[in-house]
Amino acid sequence: MKKHSAPEIKKETLYLIESFAIEILKQIEKGQFPTIELPARTTGNIVYDQRLRQYVLGNKVIRRRASNVKHLRPLTQLTWVAYIASMLIKEGKSSTLRDVFYMASGSDVPFSSQDESDRIITELESILKHPREHFNIYPEERSAIFGDLDIEYTVKGYEGRVINLTMFPDGVVIGPALASSNFIQTSADKVIVIEKSAMFTRFIEEEAWRKFNAILIHTMGQAPRSTRVLIRRLNQELNLPVYLFADADPWGLHICQVIISGSANAAHIPELATPDAKWAGVYASDITKYDLPSEKLSEVDLKRLKELLRDPRYQSEPWKSEISYFFEVKKKAEQEAFSKYGLSFIVDEYLKARLEELESL
Amino acid sequence: MKKHSAPEIKKETLYLIESFAIEILKQIEKGQFPTIELPARTTGNIVYDQRLRQYVLGNKVIRRRASNVKHLRPLTQLTWVAYIASMLIKEGKSSTLRDVFYMASGSDVPFSSQDESDRIITELESILKHPREHFNIYPEERSAIFGDLDIEYTVKGYEGRVINLTMFPDGVVIGPALASSNFIQTSADKVIVIEKSAMFTRFIEEEAWRKFNAILIHTMGQAPRSTRVLIRRLNQELNLPVYLFADADPWGLHICQVIISGSANAAHIPELATPDAKWAGVYASDITKYDLPSEKLSEVDLKRLKELLRDPRYQSEPWKSEISYFFEVKKKAEQEAFSKYGLSFIVDEYLKARLEELESL
Repeated sequence: MKKHSAPEIKKETLYLIESFAIEILKQIEKGQFPTIELPARTTGNIVYDQRLRQYVLGNKVIRRRASNVKHLRPLTQLTWVAYIASMLIKEGKSSTLRDVFYMASGSDVPFSSQDESDRIITELESILKHPREHFNIYPEERSAIFGDLDIEYTVKGYEGRVINLTMFPDGVVIGPALASSNFIQTSADKVIVIEKSAMFTRFIEEEAWRKFNAILIHTMGQAPRSTRVLIRRLNQELNLPVYLFADADPWGLHICQVIISGSANAAHIPELATPDAKWAGVYASDITKYDLPSEKLSEVDLKRLKELLRDPRYQSEPWKSEISYFFEVKKKAEQEAFSKYGLSFIVDEYLKARLEELESL
Repeated sequence: MKKHSAPEIKKETLYLIESFAIEILKQIEKGQFPTIELPARTTGNIVYDQRLRQYVLGNKVIRRRASNVKHLRPLTQLTWVAYIASMLIKEGKSSTLRDVFYMASGSDVPFSSQDESDRIITELESILKHPREHFNIYPEERSAIFGDLDIEYTVKGYEGRVINLTMFPDGVVIGPALASSNFIQTSADKVIVIEKSAMFTRFIEEEAWRKFNAILIHTMGQAPRSTRVLIRRLNQELNLPVYLFADADPWGLHICQVIISGSANAAHIPELATPDAKWAGVYASDITKYDLPSEKLSEVDLKRLKELLRDPRYQSEPWKSEISYFFEVKKKAEQEAFSKYGLSFIVDEYLKARLEELESL
């Protein structure tokens, strides 16, 4: 097990920020107007890479030149954001996109809107090829994790403290501290990701984690970016297979797919995807198979499913057949629909059968 | 400190459910069609009690008679929900409103919609005078808590385990397990409640909990009911004063007020309110005082503020003056606006000054 990955990632990010600064400084020392290059994030430069199974950026770059008066403002802003990022890492403080917008309001170059500051932060991500979480800009959302995994905190005041993630039966918050912790050891042999927090509690209470040797993670709907980074780390650092459970509707499918292959929006940073994660339910075919309480697919649902049919990320199995089956049954079902058979059924019967099915593939 | 309150509350709830069942049984044994009474939750029977400083129900009751064919269905449903509630307590399992709806779909008397099952659950609350959390029906939302408080878990597999709530620097999830734990000991002398999770993280990182001897709680916007029950318990069982921080806009005010005096919707259960909790900011007057980055109040904001002017819960200070001041400055500001002065300012300067001000009242 890689023991000290989290602080190394921050160290590397800081090194890259400093390299970016030195690049600019060198040009100034040579008496040149500084020019920087960054990957173009235009639609034409975002491609789905079939081999990597995720969105990536193509080779197009854009240039920002201090000699161009129109470039001066975004170049200055980018440099200021890079400074803030280095300061956040050095001081071990966490912040949000919103904070950075407000911090600038006390500086000489305020942003005109949060859209502007968010865009500049994204540019810094694309230069460093690191998600903003690595320079301590975190999402507002907090999901949770539970299971037999020892982690070691690296944040101020908690350095070196090792905690087992079964200590709190409600799960452990995935905030900045957990997101920057090291994995020390685990007896788990898989990760199960669950869309809803009450279902996550069910999986703990019904001891799904013990019965299936699993680390459990809930996403609270669309998984926050920190949670997606963590799922990737569990998969890649610990070699744990990842199984994804969400509602049987187009939104549930999309929650799983974004964890698997990222989004076009985040094509500039590969660390948000877990291409080997497997969609494990609830399938459209489960609605019939288990005679689940269901609702009719709405017009909006059907429109969304049609979009998924054309999306390159949904061209493999079981996506293709399951999407066809949605059009056939015209129904959707929630994870909680299994409560029809009592509260234990989803873990003891459904999950058991599905994991056996997927593990035998 | 009351040491074993949480399991006693569940025991009492179970006793009340059984008394309700025995009541029905006795009538049947006497050869009578069973009749039950429950408090009317109609608008006319919901009153704001100035002395208790919260919404309560008046004396009107409604009757459900098995001899009336129209009453038969809701009476049967109520009895079934009471059975499910007793089963949840006895088996130590948690569930949600949605689960109960689906559980009924496997029974002989399914609900026609979740509205119907939610209403019947509310009726059971009003008969028992206990929130549904006491019979293990929990909200989907999860907020978090952090601070020097030892709690003892009472849920299955964790009975008797004592945990200190500073162990996890991201905070501890307020799920079913934490909500049903006992308070063992604390060095804190106050509770600070914070609207946003990133600001909650800021308060931990900037050691607001240590500097002000405080237990910190975040609400993730409107506080989930379990969180409101917990805030009340901290105030009443541990005699800790409670201070509430939210954005300076009508929605922030309302988040604080609902924690203080509950809502008309929950007038049938007193355990959701903390009448002694104090609104501690961000005030409209802070926008001027601290020259905060702000936005114009929208039409919707102004309409909402006008509603608050007529609401009995906003007739005392500082509510009245601050609402007037909103109309004067016509601006709103977020908690993060203090980041203009760096990330430490909100704790080291603003919070310090506000707590001194409120404690000297």
